[in-house]
Amino acid sequence: MQPPRRSPFRQRSAPPGSESWQTPWVQIKYFTFHPNVFPNMVADASPDAQKGDIVAVYDREGQLFGHGFYNKDAKVALRIFQHSSEPLPADHFEQAIRQAVSLRLDSLQLQGKTDAFRVINSDGDGIPGLMVDKFGDVLAVEISTLAAQQRLDTWVPLLHSLLGTKEVVYHFDANAARAEMLSPHFVDAELEKKSAKIEATRITENGVRFHVNFESGHKTGFFCDQRDNRAQLASWVKDARVLDICCYTGGFSVSAMKAGAAEVTAVDLDENAIAVAKKNANLNQQRVSFVHADAFSWMRQMQKNGDTWDAVVLDPPKLVFSRESFEEGKAKYHDMNKLALSLVKRGGLFLTCSCSGLMPVEMFEEIVVGVAHRSGRELQILDRRGAGADHPIMSNCPESRYLKTLWARVW
Amino acid sequence: MQPPRRSPFRQRSAPPGSESWQTPWVQIKYFTFHPNVFPNMVADASPDAQKGDIVAVYDREGQLFGHGFYNKDAKVALRIFQHSSEPLPADHFEQAIRQAVSLRLDSLQLQGKTDAFRVINSDGDGIPGLMVDKFGDVLAVEISTLAAQQRLDTWVPLLHSLLGTKEVVYHFDANAARAEMLSPHFVDAELEKKSAKIEATRITENGVRFHVNFESGHKTGFFCDQRDNRAQLASWVKDARVLDICCYTGGFSVSAMKAGAAEVTAVDLDENAIAVAKKNANLNQQRVSFVHADAFSWMRQMQKNGDTWDAVVLDPPKLVFSRESFEEGKAKYHDMNKLALSLVKRGGLFLTCSCSGLMPVEMFEEIVVGVAHRSGRELQILDRRGAGADHPIMSNCPESRYLKTLWARVW
Repeated sequence: MQPPRRSPFRQRSAPPGSESWQTPWVQIKYFTFHPNVFPNMVADASPDAQKGDIVAVYDREGQLFGHGFYNKDAKVALRIFQHSSEPLPADHFEQAIRQAVSLRLDSLQLQGKTDAFRVINSDGDGIPGLMVDKFGDVLAVEISTLAAQQRLDTWVPLLHSLLGTKEVVYHFDANAARAEMLSPHFVDAELEKKSAKIEATRITENGVRFHVNFESGHKTGFFCDQRDNRAQLASWVKDARVLDICCYTGGFSVSAMKAGAAEVTAVDLDENAIAVAKKNANLNQQRVSFVHADAFSWMRQMQKNGDTWDAVVLDPPKLVFSRESFEEGKAKYHDMNKLALSLVKRGGLFLTCSCSGLMPVEMFEEIVVGVAHRSGRELQILDRRGAGADHPIMSNCPESRYLKTLWARVW
Repeated sequence: MQPPRRSPFRQRSAPPGSESWQTPWVQIKYFTFHPNVFPNMVADASPDAQKGDIVAVYDREGQLFGHGFYNKDAKVALRIFQHSSEPLPADHFEQAIRQAVSLRLDSLQLQGKTDAFRVINSDGDGIPGLMVDKFGDVLAVEISTLAAQQRLDTWVPLLHSLLGTKEVVYHFDANAARAEMLSPHFVDAELEKKSAKIEATRITENGVRFHVNFESGHKTGFFCDQRDNRAQLASWVKDARVLDICCYTGGFSVSAMKAGAAEVTAVDLDENAIAVAKKNANLNQQRVSFVHADAFSWMRQMQKNGDTWDAVVLDPPKLVFSRESFEEGKAKYHDMNKLALSLVKRGGLFLTCSCSGLMPVEMFEEIVVGVAHRSGRELQILDRRGAGADHPIMSNCPESRYLKTLWARVW
């Protein structure tokens, strides 16, 4: 990404450790635009820099280049949320929250389409460790830094006032807590006290209604990121026989059926997801054939039967979890796409998705095109999309781009 | 793209040159999924293979793997439009045309949004050398192969009957004609005779009306490929001050203004384009400030003045023309994006486009992010798009992906 070698902010330089430095401060070994700074990159810190504090960030030449959250014991010791040589305004995060909400409401005009959207996308909105989804009147807040957790009592009331929401449920992922050197149990108990006692709600997206569950923390059974893809599928499958592989809670299936698909078959191995999917179909008075089965064996059976569909959606859960298991995950994408492609009628539509952040978009496309060609088929590529614009990605953190969707007619 | 090393079609193999080969035939040196085969890859051809003929294509082992258009003297000697070991149905192109029209009308449901769209996208629809845009009642047909030219009299009436169009204007680019070993003047004169004597028409896209000119062949002053981007810009700039750099005939400007932008300033060096843009604004009863100026010097002046906008669109014409002049074009993208970014207000929207097919999407993004970072600014990336789905790209011809658009808020 051609980062600048030196800080592009040239003002306000002062000798290292100088008394004119803003406190608390952290000095790092070399300039970086990346928001995440690991402990081995930290050169020094002022004695008053406490866990969760906002610190001024200086480079080795003593030049101020930003501000971040400090947590010296954490896996990521410093999370820079502002790159600038300007002092940090006292209302910095109030501004960031207002700008995030304004993006969704004023610029993207989402309230006309849906009452469920991502309000704060962590680094993508300049607030490391805070992920907020709005589901009707309820905010689902996923926290992953101590600093964010410390500031919830100022941030959440502001979000409520800007969005007109009333309830909030919190979740702090156990792995994220450990990375911040927090006890998952302790954090969980604290957040449990703060969280609203609410089991579920209903939302409406592009005229389609969905159940959203809060019983299991942030895993609500509803992903806002596929909104535009659900709408596009719905508008492209009139009168079509649609197959939805890894249908989860039926987002694509119900949207397609409601928009006039001739019939929809939807397959998932997760019994709970299928149960919610059925509720979602009923909520919209739509008939979808839900199949509780392993996608691989079910697709193999359909391949044997010679059955094909006008449109096939393949939206598996994350298949690449770590760099260590990369090849295993890649092989799964390969195999699933090969099977799914074999179930697309000649000239039919194929929507294939990957939500694995570790899988680059070029490689994903190479896998899909490769299996198509080796199966003697060609893809007429119609579109490439990602998560909706309420899931912004900062240019200094490109690896947070995770969702990739490829749309094609299969010949 | 991991092409198969051997043909994935295993049936119907016969010894090279065998009498059981379909005629006319062409044998090529090795299997390829690419549609374009250069003369040095051709091993042999049957004596009855004439210029413009459909030929059966065999690999070196005598295995049938597809059909293509043959023109032995042309720069591209063979254009494979079907990869398969099946015989070619007599109505192959009738089917291809019906499928192309069905994609636009039945699947994409374009007629509800616009009366202007790409009907046939050459290789992207399996018809090498034929590019057809529909503008209301008129088809604008751009031909680039002898084979396509020879078949216009069967193809065009079918298109009229499927689309309800009435008139047709033809164009054969002079360079394409030379590459097919045709005399540009002769071809032009032939097509002139066939073309309707029609100067202009009007179309309506997402409720916005536009003039379309046919005076200068296929250069109609209207690009259908940016339709979705125009609609997205329009929906995201309510009450915003918008700047449109390289506004051409005002597609983005007029759409934005009509959708509720507070004001739009639109700059282009092409006097004729500005004249049409003004007509387009009037046609929609919108006020746009059009500036006839060189984008570079005008932007430099605004930079000096310290003027900034809520939203800046940068959609320059093709800046990379050839591999030889690649660096020159790349530098232009760099410089234009740097200037345009400096005119975006903090937190404002930036839409930047590249229609250079030779510029890879990753490199384009690297250029834009690089200039932003070196200017001390960060991009909050909201979306990445390309041409609309009526401009499909075949997986065996990825280099035909030309349009890239990047959407970001600039901090």
